Amino acid sequence: MGGDDAPDVVVKGALAAISCEYEIVLVGDKERLESMLGSHLHAPGIRVVHASQVIGMDETPSTALEKKKDSSLLVAARLVKQGEAHALVSAGNTGALMAGALLTIGRTSGIRRPAIAVTWPTAADGSDGRTDQVLVLDCGANAECKPEYLVQFGHMGSVYVERVMRRRNPRVGLLNIGGEAGKGNTFVNTTYPLLEKAGLNFIGNVEPQLMMRGDVDVVVTDGFVGNSILKTGEAVAEMILNMIRAGVKQSWRAKIGAWLMKPVFMQLKSKVDPAAYGGALLLGLKVPVVKAHGRSNAVAISNAIRVAARAVSEGVVGHIAQSLQSATAREKEGGDVDAARSPQA
Amino acid sequence: MGGDDAPDVVVKGALAAISCEYEIVLVGDKERLESMLGSHLHAPGIRVVHASQVIGMDETPSTALEKKKDSSLLVAARLVKQGEAHALVSAGNTGALMAGALLTIGRTSGIRRPAIAVTWPTAADGSDGRTDQVLVLDCGANAECKPEYLVQFGHMGSVYVERVMRRRNPRVGLLNIGGEAGKGNTFVNTTYPLLEKAGLNFIGNVEPQLMMRGDVDVVVTDGFVGNSILKTGEAVAEMILNMIRAGVKQSWRAKIGAWLMKPVFMQLKSKVDPAAYGGALLLGLKVPVVKAHGRSNAVAISNAIRVAARAVSEGVVGHIAQSLQSATAREKEGGDVDAARSPQA
Repeated sequence: MGGDDAPDVVVKGALAAISCEYEIVLVGDKERLESMLGSHLHAPGIRVVHASQVIGMDETPSTALEKKKDSSLLVAARLVKQGEAHALVSAGNTGALMAGALLTIGRTSGIRRPAIAVTWPTAADGSDGRTDQVLVLDCGANAECKPEYLVQFGHMGSVYVERVMRRRNPRVGLLNIGGEAGKGNTFVNTTYPLLEKAGLNFIGNVEPQLMMRGDVDVVVTDGFVGNSILKTGEAVAEMILNMIRAGVKQSWRAKIGAWLMKPVFMQLKSKVDPAAYGGALLLGLKVPVVKAHGRSNAVAISNAIRVAARAVSEGVVGHIAQSLQSATAREKEGGDVDAARSPQA
Repeated sequence: MGGDDAPDVVVKGALAAISCEYEIVLVGDKERLESMLGSHLHAPGIRVVHASQVIGMDETPSTALEKKKDSSLLVAARLVKQGEAHALVSAGNTGALMAGALLTIGRTSGIRRPAIAVTWPTAADGSDGRTDQVLVLDCGANAECKPEYLVQFGHMGSVYVERVMRRRNPRVGLLNIGGEAGKGNTFVNTTYPLLEKAGLNFIGNVEPQLMMRGDVDVVVTDGFVGNSILKTGEAVAEMILNMIRAGVKQSWRAKIGAWLMKPVFMQLKSKVDPAAYGGALLLGLKVPVVKAHGRSNAVAISNAIRVAARAVSEGVVGHIAQSLQSATAREKEGGDVDAARSPQA
C-alpha cells in the first residue's frame, strides 16, 4: 500500500514479476487488491494477505509504527518474522520501513547498523572495467556514523554487488573530497586505515566525479553525506530534465526537435529517473529488504521484486554474516600476531 | 596564469571587462601577456605586472606556495597586500589560492575561518520570491567545521547576497537531510539554535531539493558536505549532458532533432555549465577574492572580474565585519540579560 501510486502500480509490478521461482504475497486492503488482481486472483505465484491500515509517505515513522499495528508494512514484516516470507519489498515511507523492519525482523548477527544502499547510474556503459551502476551506502539510515560502521557497510555492499549484481571482487571506495590519502576530515581519516585492513578490495578515497565515471563498485560514506549527495544528484537531474521540458514548450522548432530526439530522451530517462531504475536496499537485516522509490512505476516495482528474490536465492544475508566473521577472525589473528611481535606482550 | 586555458581566456575575459570604474592588473609572464594584449597594450584600465612562475592546477598548495614565491598567484596577492590592488581574481588552483590569500592577505577581523562560497543555479527563474541562484558555503575550505563557523558563514553569505547579488533580507538555510528541526546529526543540531539567534533571516533546515527550487538565498554547511554535494551536482549535470551528446551522435534523426533544439540546449548550458556561470568566492579575507572555474571561458572570467569589482565598491568586506560585530554585541547583550535574570548571577 506504500508509494505515491499504490496500490495500483504495485499490483501491476507484482503481476509482471510473477515467476515459478518464488511466490509474491501482496499485503494490504484485501478487497481493493483482489479486485485489481481481477482474472489473476487465483493465479499461482501470487496471493493476498489483508492489512487494514496504511502508513503515509509523510508520517513520522515512530508515531506511525506505534499507532498502526495493522499497517501493510508491519503485517508484511510480521509475515517475514514468522518465516512465511523471505524478503520484504516496499515503495512506502523509507524511515518507517527501516524502523519497522529493524524492530520486527531484526539485524543480521554481528551487524552494528543496517544501512540504506542505493544503486546510482554512472556515465559508463559497463564495459572496460567500468561499472554502469555503483552502490552507495549509507544513504540516510544513520545520520551519525562511527568509522567501524563504514567498514561493515563495505562488507555488506561488496557481498551484495558480488552476489546480486554479479561482479567479481568489487572495488570499494571511501567517499572523500580529495583523492589522496590524508584528504578530508578526521572521520574519513580514521575510517581509511580500517578499510585498508578489512580484507576488502579497497581502492582508497573516491570523489563524486570518479564515482560517476564508474571506476568503483561500492562507495561507503556516513548517512548524512550519503543522503545529501543522493538528494542533490536527484534534484540536479530533475532540474535539468525539467528545464529541457520547459524549453521545448516554448517553440514549435524545439517541439519538433524533441520529437526527433525522443529515443535519446527515453534512454536518458531510463538511466537517470529514479522512478525507473529502481530503489534502495536496506542491508544488514535478517532478510533482504528492498525499498522501491516512492514514485516507482510498475517496471521499477517488478525489478525490486526480482532483486529481492535474487538476494534470497543467492543467500546474501548469510554471505554478509560470513564476510563479517572472516574479517573479525582475520583482525583477531592480526592482533595476535602484533601482540606476539611486541616485546611488551 | 591559472586555469585550464590560461592565459588565453584570462586575457580575453579581462579585455571584455575593461571599465572606467576600475583598473585591471594582469599578473604573469609579461612577454606573453603583452603580446596577447596586442593593440590594447596601452589601453587605459588594464596593465601588466610580471611574475616568472605559475602554480599548476594539480600542485599541492603548501609545496607550491613554498617553492614558487614568484608565482602569478603570490605576486598578485602581494600587490593586494601592498594596497596596489583591492581584489583578487584567479582561475587557478583553488587550494593554493585559498592558502596563498590567507597567508599573504589575511582574514577579515573577527572571522575564524574563511569559506568558499559557490553560486548554484536553481530551477527557478528569479520570480515569485524564488531565486535563480543560491549561494552555498562552505564548499571545501574547511573539511572540519565547528558550529560557530557556520554562523559566520551565514553572516558572510547574507552580506554578499544582499550587497553583490542585490537581494534584500536574504533567507539563510542550514543544509540538512530532513526539513524539521531535530533531523540530522549532532553537528547540525548544535548549529541550528546558534543560527536561530544570530540575527539572520534564518529559515531553518533545507534539503537539497528545496535549495534547488530556489526557496532559499544562502545555504550553510561544513566544507566536507558542501564540497561533496557541489562535486556530485557537477558530475550529474556533466553526465546528463554527455549522455545527450552521445545519444545525438547515434542517428541522423537525433542529429536533426538536436539542431532544432539548439536554443534550448544553449539556454541549459548557460545555466548549468560551471565554465559559463562563473565561480566561487573566498569570503572572510581582507579583500574580495574571486575564484573563477578552472575551465572558465572568457565570459566567465569577465563576470568574475565584475563580481570582484562590485564586491569592492559595495564594501562587502566592511559590511561582513560590521555584521559580525553587531551579532557579537547582540549576543553579549543577550548574555547579560540572561545573566541578570538568572538567580545565580
